[in-house]
Amino acid sequence: MRFLSLLLALAPAAGVFGLWPQPRSLETGSTALKLASDFDIHVSVQHPPSDLSDAVSRTKSFLQNDKLGRLVVGRGSSDSSALKTAKSLKTLQLSLSKGATVRSITEESRLALGTRSEEYILDIPADGSTATLTANSTLGLLRGLTTFSQLFYEWSGQIYTVEAPISITDAPAYPWRGLMLDTSRNFFPVADIMRTLDAMSLVKMSQFHWHVTDSQSFPLVIPGFTELANAGAYDPSMVYSPSDVQDIVDYAGARGIDVMVEIDTPGHTAIIGAAHPEYVACAEASPWTTFANEPPAGQLRLASATVANFTAKMFTAVAKMFPSTVLSTGGDELNTECYAQDSETQADLTSTGRTLEQALSVFTQTTHGALKAAGKTPAVWEEMVLDHNVTLSNETVVLVWISSMNAAAVAEKNFRLVHAPSDYFYLDCGAGEWIGDDVANSWCDPFKTWQKAYTFDPQANISASQAHLVLGGEQALWTEQSGPENLDPIVWPRAAASAEVFWTGPGGNGSEALPRLHDVAFRMRQRGVKAIQLQPMWCALRPGQCNLDS
Amino acid sequence: MRFLSLLLALAPAAGVFGLWPQPRSLETGSTALKLASDFDIHVSVQHPPSDLSDAVSRTKSFLQNDKLGRLVVGRGSSDSSALKTAKSLKTLQLSLSKGATVRSITEESRLALGTRSEEYILDIPADGSTATLTANSTLGLLRGLTTFSQLFYEWSGQIYTVEAPISITDAPAYPWRGLMLDTSRNFFPVADIMRTLDAMSLVKMSQFHWHVTDSQSFPLVIPGFTELANAGAYDPSMVYSPSDVQDIVDYAGARGIDVMVEIDTPGHTAIIGAAHPEYVACAEASPWTTFANEPPAGQLRLASATVANFTAKMFTAVAKMFPSTVLSTGGDELNTECYAQDSETQADLTSTGRTLEQALSVFTQTTHGALKAAGKTPAVWEEMVLDHNVTLSNETVVLVWISSMNAAAVAEKNFRLVHAPSDYFYLDCGAGEWIGDDVANSWCDPFKTWQKAYTFDPQANISASQAHLVLGGEQALWTEQSGPENLDPIVWPRAAASAEVFWTGPGGNGSEALPRLHDVAFRMRQRGVKAIQLQPMWCALRPGQCNLDS
Repeated sequence: MRFLSLLLALAPAAGVFGLWPQPRSLETGSTALKLASDFDIHVSVQHPPSDLSDAVSRTKSFLQNDKLGRLVVGRGSSDSSALKTAKSLKTLQLSLSKGATVRSITEESRLALGTRSEEYILDIPADGSTATLTANSTLGLLRGLTTFSQLFYEWSGQIYTVEAPISITDAPAYPWRGLMLDTSRNFFPVADIMRTLDAMSLVKMSQFHWHVTDSQSFPLVIPGFTELANAGAYDPSMVYSPSDVQDIVDYAGARGIDVMVEIDTPGHTAIIGAAHPEYVACAEASPWTTFANEPPAGQLRLASATVANFTAKMFTAVAKMFPSTVLSTGGDELNTECYAQDSETQADLTSTGRTLEQALSVFTQTTHGALKAAGKTPAVWEEMVLDHNVTLSNETVVLVWISSMNAAAVAEKNFRLVHAPSDYFYLDCGAGEWIGDDVANSWCDPFKTWQKAYTFDPQANISASQAHLVLGGEQALWTEQSGPENLDPIVWPRAAASAEVFWTGPGGNGSEALPRLHDVAFRMRQRGVKAIQLQPMWCALRPGQCNLDS
Repeated sequence: MRFLSLLLALAPAAGVFGLWPQPRSLETGSTALKLASDFDIHVSVQHPPSDLSDAVSRTKSFLQNDKLGRLVVGRGSSDSSALKTAKSLKTLQLSLSKGATVRSITEESRLALGTRSEEYILDIPADGSTATLTANSTLGLLRGLTTFSQLFYEWSGQIYTVEAPISITDAPAYPWRGLMLDTSRNFFPVADIMRTLDAMSLVKMSQFHWHVTDSQSFPLVIPGFTELANAGAYDPSMVYSPSDVQDIVDYAGARGIDVMVEIDTPGHTAIIGAAHPEYVACAEASPWTTFANEPPAGQLRLASATVANFTAKMFTAVAKMFPSTVLSTGGDELNTECYAQDSETQADLTSTGRTLEQALSVFTQTTHGALKAAGKTPAVWEEMVLDHNVTLSNETVVLVWISSMNAAAVAEKNFRLVHAPSDYFYLDCGAGEWIGDDVANSWCDPFKTWQKAYTFDPQANISASQAHLVLGGEQALWTEQSGPENLDPIVWPRAAASAEVFWTGPGGNGSEALPRLHDVAFRMRQRGVKAIQLQPMWCALRPGQCNLDS
């Protein structure tokens, strides 16, 4: 059934300009092939799920509307004569491998990590005979459709490729190919998130990590806990209602993306004090530099049984909103001075006879216990494993952010991990400091270029016996200096770099990659995503001619 | 008549949050004052120019449509009770000082540098009696209207200030408050340029420096020289027609902005070779690193009389398209190796008995002679004064870009100068290198923050006797890694930093400035300019609370 299982050992293939990420195995010719005016996509699946039918419709729409000219001088003008004699492709036939269980794309996308089936085989003959796309799952079909839509260009009303026949056998190297967005420092309307999911899907990303709340604002409306957004959102209009969340997870699921929500606790929670002042220690304490890594200070009183129970119940309610099997409780940047100076926390520690570390472990077991009861796997930031003495289930997913050097230590402790290292993958770095009167460079300068992300090695310093613990990785946008205004340009096409590292595998050559990254950036722009220009258009149309030795 | 002439000696005043740039003299109260539902602006000018009437209409539209809530917690909610008893302002009365010549804003904006009158006096009583705006010119009235529109906020349908009475006497420190945009590396549609002019006008900028062509593409359609864009534009749709130019200079003029176009010569001209291969030395020569600072190589054959005459005639034609008195011929980054290896240039030098430097001087005198005949003042980049032995008219405006340290040397040579230093004002720096296979940082990293630009001192190292030579300055967007997708976020609100330095004068305090910069950025967003977030909104609503010691 898993007929593609050998693929993971294949090296990346030399590629078609338009494909990002690069398929694991790819053969192309040099024959022009155009889409017939009555081109159609046939689905040979009994009772196809509606999101598969929708994906087929979207693919046909992209083929018609992308209208992307090839990135060569003159765009498609030099293809005119080849197009006159080109065969027409009338049909792409989709089918599932024999015996495959038919689930919706959405269901497949939300399966537990490591059990999702994304592999596919795509064959496009040069003679106009039927092209075929086969997979083990509807999710694999979606990945194949995404590839198919990237193969075609437009010139003078014709939609075509000049590289037929095309034969692709493909599967991802890692299941977690993610993007993190912080919607607390600054708010993003639902439409911005959906457009981001569109772009993620185009580069076959699988995981949206939604850092939905933080100390600055609480935009998530949680049934039974609506006071948190009522008091903590920036504005009554700047919230995600339960139906907004439903729309977002459905939109993501239909595009092959699972949504892991994160309610960062017990730090990064100052704004909970707007609704529940009694739950928060050192709320807006001054100077904030003593009590937090950034303003405002404020952390949940983790040693309080009342606060732990409140937090666990909140997580139970949040778990019901998000169908993913994974949910993050955060756990980064806990400030001990905040608790040292908080008389309520000190009283709680005294009365229970616990140290702060012991109380943190109890707090975490309480919240994680609630998640487990709700059928969820918890995720945490690396400090919970490396800096604290917290008892965690071995199931826990650990997000490595402080440094890429820390991944090995997490693997040593036998936890599954996701790479999100600030030294490679932080999209916000390099714009200087945002603290009002600090004119120094920011802690994570310089700017992390796409080239830097592209050189990342997921298995660096990790022993072969622990290799299986690496789930993948994600680029992250923290939004102290970002908002809807610069979302697209600060993320795209940069975040596509890690999408290829974790789909195709590491070791790609930046010079080879650049023309393909131009191509996917141009295609994103055609689809309404404001991906930036990587070079002057002169260079984009002349691959290699803006290299140093050219 | 110049009743505001003493103002230039005044120190910046403590300010209303909403004003950027800070007026030279400002007094405010703490009384709420709202606009009456029938508020109107009366123009006491006989036969007001149509662009003044348009500016009045735009101002009324901004007042109604900005709908900006005050940047405080709760936005305007705490103003509700004050608004219940607030007086209503029914009229703003505009008038010119006695004996002032009535010209259109557009005409005033295009007067020679140093002769434009931008000063104004604005008085808004707290009791609802008529507010008055007086100036020496329609351009001064425009600046005052711009200030007026920034004073008002919206809450619950009411448009109001809480700082009446307001009394402002204002005038700029420097005439040149500019922004440079490169439309050659990547193309920008006319609408993007117009939106940029809107934002410039909001912060009282006076000069758009349009670097319209370069080696990568030639988007300007010049009557009589249409072959240049025909062969050199990226696409037939990616051009500025003469009517586009007319629209842009008119749009700018009506907003108090003069447009200085730049056709960079004799370097940065490779693309002219697409139409006239015989005019260009070392066109696309390889390796480009030998022949140019960036790909593609190619420079006008400056020693050829034919090429010099062609270029001069082209400038004559360009001069007719742009009503400004200033026009830039560029002159930066001339590569000598390109000419050393060009047999045609060597033959021309031999036959005329000139050195390359002598030929450059003749070439420049030819092009500048054409400009002078067309009534224009030439502008050049600093190398033409500091690195070459070129005879230039003392009228010439010199743009300093390589380093802020070079301004003093230009002033020593008694040339008027514009500060555009890469170490303070280059908006493109800090995103890494764009050369395809160069993973090093770019030459002008790191990112130039608004705080950095804000610390610029226009008179640093310049002697008092040469102080008058400083015309002002400009921030610059070179577009190797930019396009329409990131134009607004990469420029705004950063470029407002220099607008205040050159209007109000240097020495502003960044902590004091930040809340006002937030305010103008929020207002830009309300007007459709995608200025970025400078901080989490939590900070924007709590001035000072995200400072280090808060």
